Amino acid sequence: MNAPAILDYRLQPRSAGYNNPPPLQQFLNRSYEQFKSDDSGQLADYIPELTRADPNHFGVSIATIDGHVYEVGDSAVPFTIQSVSKAFVFAYALELLGVDTVEAAIGVEPSGEAFNSIRLTADNRPFNPMVNAGAIACSGLIYQAKRGAAFESIRDMLGRFAGRELGVDEAVYCSERDTGDRNRAIGWLLRNYSVIRGDVDQVLNVYFRQCAVLVTARDLAVMAATLANRGVNPITGEQVISPYVVARTLSVMTSSGMYDYAGEWTYRVGIPAKSGVGGGIIAALPSQIGLGTFSPRLDEHGNSVRGLKLCEALSSRFDLHILNRSADVRTCIIADYDILSISSRRIRQPHEQRLLETHHDDIRIVELVGALNFANMDYVARRLASDRPNAPLLILDFRRVPISPRQVHACLERI
Amino acid sequence: MNAPAILDYRLQPRSAGYNNPPPLQQFLNRSYEQFKSDDSGQLADYIPELTRADPNHFGVSIATIDGHVYEVGDSAVPFTIQSVSKAFVFAYALELLGVDTVEAAIGVEPSGEAFNSIRLTADNRPFNPMVNAGAIACSGLIYQAKRGAAFESIRDMLGRFAGRELGVDEAVYCSERDTGDRNRAIGWLLRNYSVIRGDVDQVLNVYFRQCAVLVTARDLAVMAATLANRGVNPITGEQVISPYVVARTLSVMTSSGMYDYAGEWTYRVGIPAKSGVGGGIIAALPSQIGLGTFSPRLDEHGNSVRGLKLCEALSSRFDLHILNRSADVRTCIIADYDILSISSRRIRQPHEQRLLETHHDDIRIVELVGALNFANMDYVARRLASDRPNAPLLILDFRRVPISPRQVHACLERI
Amino acid sequence: MNAPAILDYRLQPRSAGYNNPPPLQQFLNRSYEQFKSDDSGQLADYIPELTRADPNHFGVSIATIDGHVYEVGDSAVPFTIQSVSKAFVFAYALELLGVDTVEAAIGVEPSGEAFNSIRLTADNRPFNPMVNAGAIACSGLIYQAKRGAAFESIRDMLGRFAGRELGVDEAVYCSERDTGDRNRAIGWLLRNYSVIRGDVDQVLNVYFRQCAVLVTARDLAVMAATLANRGVNPITGEQVISPYVVARTLSVMTSSGMYDYAGEWTYRVGIPAKSGVGGGIIAALPSQIGLGTFSPRLDEHGNSVRGLKLCEALSSRFDLHILNRSADVRTCIIADYDILSISSRRIRQPHEQRLLETHHDDIRIVELVGALNFANMDYVARRLASDRPNAPLLILDFRRVPISPRQVHACLERI
Amino acid sequence: MNAPAILDYRLQPRSAGYNNPPPLQQFLNRSYEQFKSDDSGQLADYIPELTRADPNHFGVSIATIDGHVYEVGDSAVPFTIQSVSKAFVFAYALELLGVDTVEAAIGVEPSGEAFNSIRLTADNRPFNPMVNAGAIACSGLIYQAKRGAAFESIRDMLGRFAGRELGVDEAVYCSERDTGDRNRAIGWLLRNYSVIRGDVDQVLNVYFRQCAVLVTARDLAVMAATLANRGVNPITGEQVISPYVVARTLSVMTSSGMYDYAGEWTYRVGIPAKSGVGGGIIAALPSQIGLGTFSPRLDEHGNSVRGLKLCEALSSRFDLHILNRSADVRTCIIADYDILSISSRRIRQPHEQRLLETHHDDIRIVELVGALNFANMDYVARRLASDRPNAPLLILDFRRVPISPRQVHACLERI
Repeated sequence: MNAPAILDYRLQPRSAGYNNPPPLQQFLNRSYEQFKSDDSGQLADYIPELTRADPNHFGVSIATIDGHVYEVGDSAVPFTIQSVSKAFVFAYALELLGVDTVEAAIGVEPSGEAFNSIRLTADNRPFNPMVNAGAIACSGLIYQAKRGAAFESIRDMLGRFAGRELGVDEAVYCSERDTGDRNRAIGWLLRNYSVIRGDVDQVLNVYFRQCAVLVTARDLAVMAATLANRGVNPITGEQVISPYVVARTLSVMTSSGMYDYAGEWTYRVGIPAKSGVGGGIIAALPSQIGLGTFSPRLDEHGNSVRGLKLCEALSSRFDLHILNRSADVRTCIIADYDILSISSRRIRQPHEQRLLETHHDDIRIVELVGALNFANMDYVARRLASDRPNAPLLILDFRRVPISPRQVHACLERI
Repeated sequence: MNAPAILDYRLQPRSAGYNNPPPLQQFLNRSYEQFKSDDSGQLADYIPELTRADPNHFGVSIATIDGHVYEVGDSAVPFTIQSVSKAFVFAYALELLGVDTVEAAIGVEPSGEAFNSIRLTADNRPFNPMVNAGAIACSGLIYQAKRGAAFESIRDMLGRFAGRELGVDEAVYCSERDTGDRNRAIGWLLRNYSVIRGDVDQVLNVYFRQCAVLVTARDLAVMAATLANRGVNPITGEQVISPYVVARTLSVMTSSGMYDYAGEWTYRVGIPAKSGVGGGIIAALPSQIGLGTFSPRLDEHGNSVRGLKLCEALSSRFDLHILNRSADVRTCIIADYDILSISSRRIRQPHEQRLLETHHDDIRIVELVGALNFANMDYVARRLASDRPNAPLLILDFRRVPISPRQVHACLERI
Repeated sequence: MNAPAILDYRLQPRSAGYNNPPPLQQFLNRSYEQFKSDDSGQLADYIPELTRADPNHFGVSIATIDGHVYEVGDSAVPFTIQSVSKAFVFAYALELLGVDTVEAAIGVEPSGEAFNSIRLTADNRPFNPMVNAGAIACSGLIYQAKRGAAFESIRDMLGRFAGRELGVDEAVYCSERDTGDRNRAIGWLLRNYSVIRGDVDQVLNVYFRQCAVLVTARDLAVMAATLANRGVNPITGEQVISPYVVARTLSVMTSSGMYDYAGEWTYRVGIPAKSGVGGGIIAALPSQIGLGTFSPRLDEHGNSVRGLKLCEALSSRFDLHILNRSADVRTCIIADYDILSISSRRIRQPHEQRLLETHHDDIRIVELVGALNFANMDYVARRLASDRPNAPLLILDFRRVPISPRQVHACLERI
Repeated sequence: MNAPAILDYRLQPRSAGYNNPPPLQQFLNRSYEQFKSDDSGQLADYIPELTRADPNHFGVSIATIDGHVYEVGDSAVPFTIQSVSKAFVFAYALELLGVDTVEAAIGVEPSGEAFNSIRLTADNRPFNPMVNAGAIACSGLIYQAKRGAAFESIRDMLGRFAGRELGVDEAVYCSERDTGDRNRAIGWLLRNYSVIRGDVDQVLNVYFRQCAVLVTARDLAVMAATLANRGVNPITGEQVISPYVVARTLSVMTSSGMYDYAGEWTYRVGIPAKSGVGGGIIAALPSQIGLGTFSPRLDEHGNSVRGLKLCEALSSRFDLHILNRSADVRTCIIADYDILSISSRRIRQPHEQRLLETHHDDIRIVELVGALNFANMDYVARRLASDRPNAPLLILDFRRVPISPRQVHACLERI
């Protein structure tokens, strides 16, 4: 459990032309080699056009929230986004129409059923936006607002997530349109319950087109990193979507992104994720990284076999489960050390206190430094409350502290 | 979105005998006043003895991971722990028997059904350890290992989570034993599928007794804080349970702790939680706080009405949704500043470099300071990799950095 | 239990111009008065046009298999046949395409769900032809065979069941076509599973039109009597449908004709029946009568309130439950008496035996008279086998015995 | 379709010592040979003791309602009655406690689930008395009334159905009691909903014992024939159960006797039936025959493989589907001929009329002869009503007519 105190590494002499890649790149390289030999699973066959995919394709990419992109294998090969679009179109619907409208039409409970289940909730809504019914409902809401411009607005939004303009695979779109009988069934059922109000065929065309948008594993990584980065694309710097929408989107990805495998996924991998039958998977680890994988062979849940394995390996190797916040526990300790050593210095260290008191006889300045979270801010508040200075004016210097304004306001308004 | 730069607060002159409480205490005080007037909901009535509870009781407590405990209202009134025990007994079973044994007997998928559902999965296991069937299966596994000592070992373990020895409400135990027909039904069904192998009546006695353990809201807060603190009781300092067990326990609390309200809970509150029909709720925010509430009136899902409201208010007011990691995003920025300003200082500032180079001609020492997570450690790794020093020996000083050993190892082994 | 031996009725002097109607007419008259005051239930409102029905309409008709028709109330008021058509279109599909084709596409198990349930069986077929999904599948099969002539062939077939040409309520058809979103959903789902192979919109047009065919209570009575009469319309004498198709149709009416009320219906009424949301109900008692009722107010299962009551009263008053075959038990006794007194006479009475022996020295003629069923035929067979005559030629005279040829063949081939 | 007019059979000269058996016996002999080679299916293994059965045993028996019993194969080998008892114990509960009490506790809807399903209806009752839950509820109702004498009263009642005292296989009883965990689960669940009110263990002992009652195929045939004979044992002549109870019992056998195969069974075989995991099946064709089969290998629904095949062959060969009443259709025609020729003779033939008129100047006597059912009685009523005699006194002689008193009363009260 204890962090290593001091590590010393005897570095290899830098040989000519050789340089070890960063650890994440090494992880990707090794994992690529390890999993590319796995040819289990089947191509999606419910859309004829999808059976034309090359089953051997395998590409992975990780984008950091400071904008670096790692890649390996077929990370530049385009494929159709399919259900991965659901997360982004749900986010877009929330952004465009507000939570009330969207949540009135679509639930957020896991269904425990397959992605294409036609079952609705007791009050006749789709269970959540990650199953086909909920995604079609999303497209329906956007269609209602944007009419003929609906698809283009979705394509534009997906492109802003990816940081580049995205095209459409017209052959897959046509194949899906002509054979998507089950989705057509869902569409009419939704209209029956007034979840969809417009022209069902038009709504389905929007949905089929959004599923046929072409992306690469690298695009998915950047899109996921935009979610991980509270809606800011780490490459372009654009605020694509509001942070409050991001939290909601990641929530439904957590509870329903992997369908009837969602409980296992949360238990074993613990990173919000979404998969598509085109072979893509995104995983977004808030404030850290976005992952995109592409490998078209699917397991019985419709998830990419190699993609799943890579996600599990990443989570396990780097200890990334969202509920396994080992770093944070120490953050508090370190923050305690850091903040309070610093703030204590200001408060207690005689010479500095003196300095302040000398110059600002009725002002107390407390500078806070380090990673402050809810827990250690509470600690600071308690310290300040119990060790109240005599000075009538307290200046808290937060310039070196990351914290959300709402938390600052909530915690400090009544000190 | 931007953190405030410098806040100045004009403090009230410290009046005699008056001192504002810390913000969390103020929040508890206000929320207590706000919600205690809500008398909606009903006492649990399926166990006769539970109907004798005073419906007006309302107590709340928050324990921080540095060991401070806030309290308000009837936080010292004892009541039976009921289903809240499920989270801890599951953790205990994992610790005692290992994940393989437990996961072979009990699933981790949300059931989408009420807590007392008798439905099992397709392979005849309980859906998860948070529904009665799964909890009885846990007790059965422990009974199989501990036989006659099973209950005492559970009571001891619960006491270590709470930091004090806990008693049993014998009247409630007897009432539950005599009227728990449905749980008895579940017990026999589990034996039918060999999920339980021992004497069903004995297993149920263990289960009924564990449900009748007496706790207070304060106890629950400390128990939750022990989960939030990676298994270390923040009051006693005891490592009650392994961190790897904690992550698994919090995972099932996330996906199934609030039954058929779990999806909504993840979406709206976003803190791993568990409720019991005795009126208790725990919520554990990893690395930050543990919350315990007690109010016996229940909604239609069997969750305490006032407890739910308090959890929602807490999450909303302090922005605590686990997927809304605003602090972390900035942590990276600050870490960048902090770590790299420091490391850069070490690396770049001529006089320090010189100093080191002077004294350690072939050694490069890099001191890292601040909150280091997976993402910014990757950043450091990249910097080091691309800015490889000439010195054959690199010393990384992590003494001021919180990070899990596994992450350090994973990231750095190949720099 | 014993039948009355001799009843004597003191008849009223035949007053001028007055004549008591037959008992069934009296029953209808009394029941009409009794139930017409019941205004509970609601008009179907899922098709806007159906809400225009006059809720007070109430008509009943009974057709006997010898072609007599009783009527009371609004028995000549036309209304749309709706789901009552399902029984006849299923029969038509069986006749047209054969059992293999139809049974491969549609199951025969009760679904335990409402008529418009979208749920399919585990192998993705409609549960049975009495729910919407199964009925649409039937229309689809017929459309596949008849293409553009599909609806006209159905209308023609329904007309032959009714004994007159039937029209279509175009307003209801249009209303159903424009609002039948749920059925459209079902249609696409069926095409998804290749239960429907043709153009879904065309199939639905056939289905919507068949539901909008106009009938009266009298028509329904005749249609039901045609089923009761082994496929022969008792008015026109036409063999509309094969007997083997009739048995299958009555079977699915028995197990699924009244949806999730089917078990209760079999238990309490015990007559194969089918209802429609237009307010019609048919009930077909094999070899006895057909009943048609019309009253548009429906209960929560979608069954006509007054229609149900009338069926229950009819079954109860005249002891018509198909499994309560009191008559048959005695039939055997009487048959025993009748047949054997006669056959015994032939066999045993000396003068007749002699007569036969005199004239036909090597021929034995046995004349059988009365209602012969499987059970008493077995009895005759046993008697003949154990009382084997010496004559080398046995003539069995069945001219006064009703029995199916298959039974005769099966029983006698090896005497 | 037409009945043969006159059949002549050239009989084989009666050879010494050889005599063809009756057709039903021949059918049994042939079918026995045909199906005994089928060794598909598995022994029930959920009760260890059942696995000791000899899988090759195969016995069949048919009992007629005039008391003749056909047999073939191992028809005298005893085996445990298991679920076949459910039909008789339900009948007994109805007889003992009345329909209101029983129907308040147990439903009559098919569940569409396996026999040992633990699912209850929306109002927490067993779906029907043919699934384990409903059967245990029946035993519970009887236990409530009879306490310690409950099982003996059931054994006595089963014996009266069989016409001889029946024993118990104590080894199977003990095996079932010790391993019947699932049924124990069901028992407690029923007590949870107050469907069972007494001591669950005692109720289960009754149930396990009733399942372990020893019968032979011959016993089952007689028991079934008692149901077919409106509750009168055709061997002993005892009225074991009321006719009104018989109709209800046959109804639930029809809709639920073969579990999730019930719809298919009604569709294909059409004879009320019940199977048990001991390998027994009963089928009761009202007013005709009772069938009992024994062969322990079961299909996936838990029905005896050979038993099912024999039932299908019997129904198909002799055209016995309850809804395929070919005989009845002709009965009406013959009855028309017979009754009216006779009654017409009485009414119209001058010399007889004269005879009557001579002696009874103001009396009209109408003698009815033949099988009279509801339909042709209506015909007679219509004839009499339209052809009203002048005589003030009408004597209807029903001595040669089988008809239920209720039907006579209902039809004739107002002529």
